Amino acid sequence: MATTPPGNIKALAFDAYGTLFDVFSITARCEQLFPGSGAALTQLWRAKQLQYSLLRSLMGRYEDFWQLTEDALLYASESLKLELTAATQQELMDAYLNLAVFPDVRPGLVALKTRGLRLAILSNGAPNMLDAAVKHAGIDTAFDAIMSADELNIFKPSPQVYGLACTRLRVSTGELGFVSSNSWDVSGAASTGLTTFWVQRSAGEPADRLGFSATCVITSLDDLAGLFG
Amino acid sequence: MATTPPGNIKALAFDAYGTLFDVFSITARCEQLFPGSGAALTQLWRAKQLQYSLLRSLMGRYEDFWQLTEDALLYASESLKLELTAATQQELMDAYLNLAVFPDVRPGLVALKTRGLRLAILSNGAPNMLDAAVKHAGIDTAFDAIMSADELNIFKPSPQVYGLACTRLRVSTGELGFVSSNSWDVSGAASTGLTTFWVQRSAGEPADRLGFSATCVITSLDDLAGLFG
Repeated sequence: MATTPPGNIKALAFDAYGTLFDVFSITARCEQLFPGSGAALTQLWRAKQLQYSLLRSLMGRYEDFWQLTEDALLYASESLKLELTAATQQELMDAYLNLAVFPDVRPGLVALKTRGLRLAILSNGAPNMLDAAVKHAGIDTAFDAIMSADELNIFKPSPQVYGLACTRLRVSTGELGFVSSNSWDVSGAASTGLTTFWVQRSAGEPADRLGFSATCVITSLDDLAGLFG
Repeated sequence: MATTPPGNIKALAFDAYGTLFDVFSITARCEQLFPGSGAALTQLWRAKQLQYSLLRSLMGRYEDFWQLTEDALLYASESLKLELTAATQQELMDAYLNLAVFPDVRPGLVALKTRGLRLAILSNGAPNMLDAAVKHAGIDTAFDAIMSADELNIFKPSPQVYGLACTRLRVSTGELGFVSSNSWDVSGAASTGLTTFWVQRSAGEPADRLGFSATCVITSLDDLAGLFG
């Protein structure tokens, strides 16, 4: 696996959830609400959210990521036999608009910008979710564009979504790098010919076996900035 | 939710894995091979197998279900830090060709056939996997057709796959019933207009929230035969 990216990268598109925003930062609050089940709820909620995005894309029955996130929360709480009041549901959904960013995100983005790279978000998240989250985290000014799969009515890893980033940023496939902590997302981007950076946020996590590897494997956005000299 | 199917059903198409064949019947052997990790291995293996079928379908990078099953096994064992020898890998893959059927399957199929219904399998499984499994279980003669998503190079819940069953069995959408224990599979079939039967094999398991409910919810194939009088 290569450890340095091609020199012609002009822009980087970042996945949002799990890459910039820590979706498990709400585990503690879930644990307060449902003692003994906080981790299980957060994990099943996240797994179902992803599964529903894939299933609905393949069924041709798109609903936006906010709706899927709510559907996944309802499924997860029902499956774990947790009583979700309307108030708790509202609180947990609102938490998705105020997720914590990983500690390396703000310094990493600043370092990448000083290297002259254009930065963007390319996410399955609905536009209103992304707007709220970047503003809450104070990283909205770091990005030249915030792009959502929502305008295509299909989710990543559909090739169309990665193609949207090149079109919108007016760069060629060879000029765009894609950054994600989700190994499947890296495979999806690599399958369309993009240069890919897998942020391996869990030590020892294996790469998904989907036939396409990351160009570079890194452990933080600081490492990423370091690759650009 | 309706409890009786429309009277014009002429044929039933069954999902295979989880519906006819118990994919968790290999848990005990996995536990012998990897003490303390048998259930975790079987569950992660199955979850990844499904996830890879969805991801590859959406990426447009089809590989057959045998390949995905192997990729999922390799991922799951690596993730759980279990050392998978070549011999163990072979044994576990071969187990997929010799899965146990649920106890209600043989009597249920016989009862349905005596009611004049044509029976078929519609599965994501590769043809060689399905052929081996139905022969091993001695249920091969129960079916008029064994259909695999493999001929379309895309997996369920793509609407194309459910459409294949109507074409092959020469029945209209209204004349075909689809039977699955996988709630997402029921939703996929219902989304194409088929009459659907959800075999709820785990008591209390919630239905997936994908916008399409089962026509009938049953707990076994015996119940299913009962619906046809």
